[in-house]
Amino acid sequence: MKSLPCLFGGIEAGGTKFNCVLGRSPAEILERASFPTTHPEETLGAAIRFFEQAQARHGAIASLGVACFGPVDLTLDSPTYGFITDTPKPHWSNTDVVGTLSGALGVRVAFDTDVNGSALGEGSLGAAQGLDDYVYVTIGTGVGAGIVVNGQPVKGAMHPEVGHMLLPHDRQRDPFPGACPFHGDCLEGLAAGPAIEKRWGRKADTLPEEHEAWDIQADYLAALCWNLTVSYSPQRIILGGGVMKQDHLFPRIRERFRQHINGYPCGEAAECPQDYIVGPMLGGHAGEAGALLMAEAIA
Amino acid sequence: MKSLPCLFGGIEAGGTKFNCVLGRSPAEILERASFPTTHPEETLGAAIRFFEQAQARHGAIASLGVACFGPVDLTLDSPTYGFITDTPKPHWSNTDVVGTLSGALGVRVAFDTDVNGSALGEGSLGAAQGLDDYVYVTIGTGVGAGIVVNGQPVKGAMHPEVGHMLLPHDRQRDPFPGACPFHGDCLEGLAAGPAIEKRWGRKADTLPEEHEAWDIQADYLAALCWNLTVSYSPQRIILGGGVMKQDHLFPRIRERFRQHINGYPCGEAAECPQDYIVGPMLGGHAGEAGALLMAEAIA
Repeated sequence: MKSLPCLFGGIEAGGTKFNCVLGRSPAEILERASFPTTHPEETLGAAIRFFEQAQARHGAIASLGVACFGPVDLTLDSPTYGFITDTPKPHWSNTDVVGTLSGALGVRVAFDTDVNGSALGEGSLGAAQGLDDYVYVTIGTGVGAGIVVNGQPVKGAMHPEVGHMLLPHDRQRDPFPGACPFHGDCLEGLAAGPAIEKRWGRKADTLPEEHEAWDIQADYLAALCWNLTVSYSPQRIILGGGVMKQDHLFPRIRERFRQHINGYPCGEAAECPQDYIVGPMLGGHAGEAGALLMAEAIA
Repeated sequence: MKSLPCLFGGIEAGGTKFNCVLGRSPAEILERASFPTTHPEETLGAAIRFFEQAQARHGAIASLGVACFGPVDLTLDSPTYGFITDTPKPHWSNTDVVGTLSGALGVRVAFDTDVNGSALGEGSLGAAQGLDDYVYVTIGTGVGAGIVVNGQPVKGAMHPEVGHMLLPHDRQRDPFPGACPFHGDCLEGLAAGPAIEKRWGRKADTLPEEHEAWDIQADYLAALCWNLTVSYSPQRIILGGGVMKQDHLFPRIRERFRQHINGYPCGEAAECPQDYIVGPMLGGHAGEAGALLMAEAIA
């Protein structure tokens, strides 16, 4: 008699909602629930009750993975490892996410950033399936990146903050000084959703396709893709998040990216931008899939 | 009776000279020789004879490591793996470095870029001793980087080409259009030795310390260090190569780097630029030390 594979829990802990899943793998989810991100006690409490009830129906989970909004502390030997640290999200600063969940559920908890979770999810079943070296960038309220090298998310001394990269900024073409409170015209200050809104005085998703906003936006994202290429030599770059719901951005970005290549030998993958700079495939489910894989990796 | 540890060979295969060593570790080099990089047959032939003679005196090497100037093919399953590919260096395009050396010496050969070799060397005995995540950048005729993540050099789809990163370029402050044949004002086009020479009409090392050239240079290198920080979260950045022999650049770069941080939480290491942005410690011996470590890793 063949025994069934282990059960795992996964949480995509976002700033808006917590998506919780219980399953055997990203392809075999048995239960799913979502809770608004209100107050740590309330939201973490709802997640704990979900796993208690789902385990009563399906059996015990071997471990739990949490792909979490940040900033988070990922340094294993830090006293605040597993915490959301100093966040602008009300009530959530200094929240011990890992301790609360492992204490209540009695399982080991794997912990990483939300973007690393999404990156791992897209690597398992989505746009980076079968790849070992790729980058997942989300361009929305902020700009964040999950970077996978040799199949492993990059953590380093802290998680990468590609959103604050410095890029060429032609002030004749785009006089907007940038909206980042730290760096003014870094990538996030020029190209995140709030920067677009501040530059044009209206929400990004109300700007028509022919608006000059999008050519300027494509300039910055093509420069980002180029710098990611020379920095990581990935096999693919996935651009997701709210701003990238504007599908028409992709051909514009690829066209400018080709101009950056300009004959420079930058690897086969990058030389075919159609397959190299792509959108995500799992939509809202990438983070929870990645969280489940994180759980599996520590089981 | 305790047996002696294995012997290894290492070659720092540079565009100017090949530095060859035979030893038990980077700290225990038994023989060393250097040959000008003239023609592949001549230079590889001299290296082969050196190892044959040194082995006759000390015993057989277990393996050989080669940290090689490029561009090189590092894709293991490629038909031209271990080759110098399409290089501007006369005579060296399409040279089968690994095949020639392993054929003549009858040992396995580890192969990587020259900068990854220097990075590994600095990690063993030099400026990155004991660190798992760091970047070694050489700023000379070109700009190249060896990036170590979790103790391993990053190779990806091809070796990283950080030298061609795009950075802010204020054309009012620095009207020089850039000297990179591919990208004009990428990092290499703005800050490598030939760019400095072209901008000011004289060799970089003849420009006095108080020349405005160096403040402009520090701007670009501080932006590079910032982008490396947000991309890799390294524990340290080592800046080497001919241009960095201008020691006075370090305090200027660190000062501008502090302005880029501007209160942003970018990790403990980066917040102490004095220990974070540093020069190499092994000078001309980093590459051969790294090559020896590469040999040890495959023995």
